Amino acid sequence: MKAYGKMSKEELLALQAELQARYDKLKGEGIQLDMSRGKPGTDQLDLSAPMLDVLNSKSAFKGVNNIDVRNYGLMDGIDEAKELFAELMECPKDHVMVYGNSSLSVMYDLISKAMVHGICGSTPWCKLDKVKFLCPVPGYDRHFAITESFGIEMISIPIDENGPDMDLVEQYVNNDPAVKGIWNIPKYSNPTGVVYSDEVVRRFAGLRPAADDFRIYWDNAYAVHHVYMEDKAQILNIADECEKAGNPHMYYELCSTSKITFPGAGVAALITSPENIADIKKTVTIQTIGYDKVNQLRHVMFFKNAAGVNAHMEKHAAILRPKFDAVLDCLEKELGGLEIGSWIKPRGGYFIAFETLEGCAKRVVALCREAGVVMTPAGSTYPYKRDDADTSIRIAPTCPTPKELTKACAVFVLCVKLASVEKYLTKMA
Amino acid sequence: MKAYGKMSKEELLALQAELQARYDKLKGEGIQLDMSRGKPGTDQLDLSAPMLDVLNSKSAFKGVNNIDVRNYGLMDGIDEAKELFAELMECPKDHVMVYGNSSLSVMYDLISKAMVHGICGSTPWCKLDKVKFLCPVPGYDRHFAITESFGIEMISIPIDENGPDMDLVEQYVNNDPAVKGIWNIPKYSNPTGVVYSDEVVRRFAGLRPAADDFRIYWDNAYAVHHVYMEDKAQILNIADECEKAGNPHMYYELCSTSKITFPGAGVAALITSPENIADIKKTVTIQTIGYDKVNQLRHVMFFKNAAGVNAHMEKHAAILRPKFDAVLDCLEKELGGLEIGSWIKPRGGYFIAFETLEGCAKRVVALCREAGVVMTPAGSTYPYKRDDADTSIRIAPTCPTPKELTKACAVFVLCVKLASVEKYLTKMA
Repeated sequence: MKAYGKMSKEELLALQAELQARYDKLKGEGIQLDMSRGKPGTDQLDLSAPMLDVLNSKSAFKGVNNIDVRNYGLMDGIDEAKELFAELMECPKDHVMVYGNSSLSVMYDLISKAMVHGICGSTPWCKLDKVKFLCPVPGYDRHFAITESFGIEMISIPIDENGPDMDLVEQYVNNDPAVKGIWNIPKYSNPTGVVYSDEVVRRFAGLRPAADDFRIYWDNAYAVHHVYMEDKAQILNIADECEKAGNPHMYYELCSTSKITFPGAGVAALITSPENIADIKKTVTIQTIGYDKVNQLRHVMFFKNAAGVNAHMEKHAAILRPKFDAVLDCLEKELGGLEIGSWIKPRGGYFIAFETLEGCAKRVVALCREAGVVMTPAGSTYPYKRDDADTSIRIAPTCPTPKELTKACAVFVLCVKLASVEKYLTKMA
Repeated sequence: MKAYGKMSKEELLALQAELQARYDKLKGEGIQLDMSRGKPGTDQLDLSAPMLDVLNSKSAFKGVNNIDVRNYGLMDGIDEAKELFAELMECPKDHVMVYGNSSLSVMYDLISKAMVHGICGSTPWCKLDKVKFLCPVPGYDRHFAITESFGIEMISIPIDENGPDMDLVEQYVNNDPAVKGIWNIPKYSNPTGVVYSDEVVRRFAGLRPAADDFRIYWDNAYAVHHVYMEDKAQILNIADECEKAGNPHMYYELCSTSKITFPGAGVAALITSPENIADIKKTVTIQTIGYDKVNQLRHVMFFKNAAGVNAHMEKHAAILRPKFDAVLDCLEKELGGLEIGSWIKPRGGYFIAFETLEGCAKRVVALCREAGVVMTPAGSTYPYKRDDADTSIRIAPTCPTPKELTKACAVFVLCVKLASVEKYLTKMA
């Protein structure tokens, strides 16, 4: 295939006519497909249905510490759950605090606490004139929504296949005391699928923040969420690296079972230094008498240990692989060589990030919608939803079937082509 | 029995010698009992164990709105759960938002939101010089801990058998714009067991707050938690009364299943105007993608409707009645006529509040502890834990067995007598 950028005006006009005709025909087909939502399919949820049977009215309800999980208490989680997360995330048990459903709400609470109560005795952020966060882009819209909601200024940091631009990160963090945090999804990043390189993790751990209350928000949401099992990614352990670099309190690592068991009824965990945990407990003890310990025990009884979780994740991967393949095959086959878009093949996670030519992302998403294929709104993966270059599109392949994905992706690539031709023709006009 | 206040010094000295001898003997018995904890006993938890079987791997997982409860979404709760709480709390379904475990964390979040995001567009409290809350006393220590944690100034309001002193409440709320809220447990109050009279509820609804963002925090924690079923209390519906009084947005009513099913795995709900819910959703949508919907459905499947809940509460009452009786009988028998303490017989809830002579509460609790009976620390039921008159003691009779309670109460009344004699002798000295 000839790259679009090398075509003459005549070639482009002819191509546009052909693409437009195909697009108009597609529009008439009444397609209704959705590649916008990063959530598990029903078949994935069914994998964990047996978890609802392991804990029942005949169960003992008492954990190792002899506390009845049905009653009040144990605000930082049951011991067994701490052990499971410690093994899974490779950290000491006293670095783990186990919560209820959703790590998102743990992150929200961490920021909320920092705003009102401060971090380890620091000035609460609401008393400061300016608080800034670094946001690797494209990134997770719900991270950015939290910081935006608290009026925190967000600074975009470009990300490449190794992680964020660390020169820029160091420059901000080590010099500006208003920079209090950076959002990260270090493994199978949302939406790029990027896996942070060892060098990037080490440079994170070696930061010398101007602010004492600077923390790395290390949302390890996809820690065990491989898609291609033969090509599992491994990242350095942020806890270990921070410890080695003399920054043992600089990170908050988050994880959850939302995409392991049920997004609607999972268990979340925070991993950080015991000193940070002690600080966080000061407010959590005001906030609750305890998170759902019955659900914590249910998870432990179902998985038993990290090996149990990993075996379970193989089943998820088996469901997800044909879905990712459907999209990636279509992109490669239809767009390879045209130089009108790029993407990184993810090895895990829930998304494929697609980069259009400059100024085309919004147009592609609009064209898709008109033809019956819903995509995440362009710009969603940027702070303030502002992707100034207008290039970033997030593809979420987990919910539709492989067959639906093939259809949806056919629409998508056609829209990319159409928008790209329009773009080149406009440039020529 | 002769009232202690009418005894001569000689009589008091003789009595003291006798009481001291009995106390010293008791101390030698190695008693280890606890009347400090307002939590259900194991037999109560067992009542709800079958709830863990109704939802299992064979369940449909889909509610009326066809959403899979295991997946993301429905941030304000599943429809069926809203319906259950609406019927139970007698309000329209669109006035209900259903959360996860613990209404305490809902209250914390309401205050936290008000601090940082404001209420319905008001100035966030963290931007104000002074924010004040009214605190009926004695009251719930965890309420006071929340407001204290956010640096909110707490003002004690005396409570009698009809509820808080409403003259004082009106004076503060209607004149001081810094007064942003008042904590209430309107039914079977913690710890007094007081049930707010119709007049008190109507005067609450008729407040004319100086602050637009003043809210009544109506923690209806014991709405269906009767102990004496033949003598169930009924209070006016705060939602209806506020509506009638032209103050439809002035209240946040809270409730939960913590002491209906499991404190460790319950479901909480907020009841307020749809306008307030819309305002709250603006931050909750940033905070979470959804609370535990599987547990919400589990509760609905177990209870089916309000009648199901009420039938279940009869079983709780049957367990609690002999426990309350054990304490109340002992108090009446041992202290009646002595004029060294008073208490209100509660008709429901989890506590009995005891008032000692002035300056005796701490001493009584210390004497109890020395003899092996743990009581809630004196002063806990006051803001800043400061009960200046030192008279208030909270008795929690739900955890021990009736037999244990009889023993523990025997120790307690002896300590009350001893401390009271000491008090009168000191006054004579």
